[in-house]
Amino acid sequence: MALIDFTQFVNELATVSGQAILPFFRTAITMDDKSRGGDFDPVTEADRAGESTLRQIIKRSFPTHGIVGEEFGTEREEAEYVWVLDPIDGTRAFVAGLPTWGTLIGLTRNGSPAFGMMHQPFTGERFFGDCGRTTYQGPGGERKLRTRRCSSLKDAIISTTNPKLFAGDDLRAYDRVESVAKLARYGCDCYAYCMLAAGHIDLVVESGLKPYDIVALIPIIEGAGGIVTSWDGGSAAQGGRIVAAGDSRVHAAAIELLSR
Amino acid sequence: MALIDFTQFVNELATVSGQAILPFFRTAITMDDKSRGGDFDPVTEADRAGESTLRQIIKRSFPTHGIVGEEFGTEREEAEYVWVLDPIDGTRAFVAGLPTWGTLIGLTRNGSPAFGMMHQPFTGERFFGDCGRTTYQGPGGERKLRTRRCSSLKDAIISTTNPKLFAGDDLRAYDRVESVAKLARYGCDCYAYCMLAAGHIDLVVESGLKPYDIVALIPIIEGAGGIVTSWDGGSAAQGGRIVAAGDSRVHAAAIELLSR
Repeated sequence: MALIDFTQFVNELATVSGQAILPFFRTAITMDDKSRGGDFDPVTEADRAGESTLRQIIKRSFPTHGIVGEEFGTEREEAEYVWVLDPIDGTRAFVAGLPTWGTLIGLTRNGSPAFGMMHQPFTGERFFGDCGRTTYQGPGGERKLRTRRCSSLKDAIISTTNPKLFAGDDLRAYDRVESVAKLARYGCDCYAYCMLAAGHIDLVVESGLKPYDIVALIPIIEGAGGIVTSWDGGSAAQGGRIVAAGDSRVHAAAIELLSR
Repeated sequence: MALIDFTQFVNELATVSGQAILPFFRTAITMDDKSRGGDFDPVTEADRAGESTLRQIIKRSFPTHGIVGEEFGTEREEAEYVWVLDPIDGTRAFVAGLPTWGTLIGLTRNGSPAFGMMHQPFTGERFFGDCGRTTYQGPGGERKLRTRRCSSLKDAIISTTNPKLFAGDDLRAYDRVESVAKLARYGCDCYAYCMLAAGHIDLVVESGLKPYDIVALIPIIEGAGGIVTSWDGGSAAQGGRIVAAGDSRVHAAAIELLSR
């Protein structure tokens, strides 16, 4: 059975969720801490408003599809098609007024990531991939994205959300990679993976990701010619420890240092 | 003698420098390393194109004014009015495709910062301050900015460009502050000070700044009701170790920990 083209529907989801979320950006918002004594983990009303909106439209249009979301849990996760949603990936950037968060809308078919959208409604940018092709829409128009060539880790720009999120052996593994790379950037969440797809960043290394943090990004990265796996080279779709690269040589070099 | 209102002229400088710089953003650009074996310090053609454009317009309009710039040095620094320019503050963000860089255009009168503009041409945002008032222009229109109240460092969102830029005692001093704060964000350069002026970030702590990294930001921060000094509480206008806060109570608490 051929894969249905969900492009138009995913764009509709992005538009409507952006309208729900953006009014909360850079306003006084209520935050609470769902991690209960652990690390600060802001959850905004915008997060909930965005995910409610997405779930309503999906259920109305495709009542047999499953949904996995950060805010409101899992429904029908055994369905052929399952939507994997993170209304605000990068909530810490969001609460600090920074434009490096995004809405992640992923779709798996039989468990494999098939379509992915990253939408940044403040800058008006959309990154959309189907594993075979990735397109960008932004202030300057629309274009196809390709990762860039990078023959060696020492020439690579690396990004991670926060090096302090790595613990113990994972921190030492990350530091081995960063110490070889040319330049490191922090604080970008989903935005870093999209800059990798666009050919500006060469490598992203993270740990502790949830499936809804990465599923939507896999078709974007792979559609642009990049590679994204777990640190041991397996599927990235379950989250956890993730390494993404624009060039397979950089990916191999990173895997080697991460697993040493 | 009354201070001349340079508002319209500064906006013209922002427009023209943005037109010079933006075509280089997210394209393949030539980089070289001016630090000669030290830390990676990208200088782009965009940096030079932006500063050339700014200098030309300033010299044509105000031939007696001085100019201090990152790329092309100092002219007439003893003049009553001196322009202090950083065409791309946040070159590392720029080369990684991230929108958290900005063009800094400052004006000192008799050595004191009087006007400051931060222009982010990709997002279409301008932050303009004259020490008495700070205004924001962006996708959602124009508004006056005020820093937010924050009674205690433990409730503060702190930002620094990269904690690894601090060395030795400075790193220990910074860590004392960050460990008390609620949340830390990295990687923002000038954008963090503007989010402080806009009331989303409470504290920015950095070291190793040049005058052109901070002079334009001082009127923006002070015009929004914030406070920005050196770590020992003196003038910030010479750069070096800088602490900026939206609320004077957070500033005092940070100074106390930084100088311990």
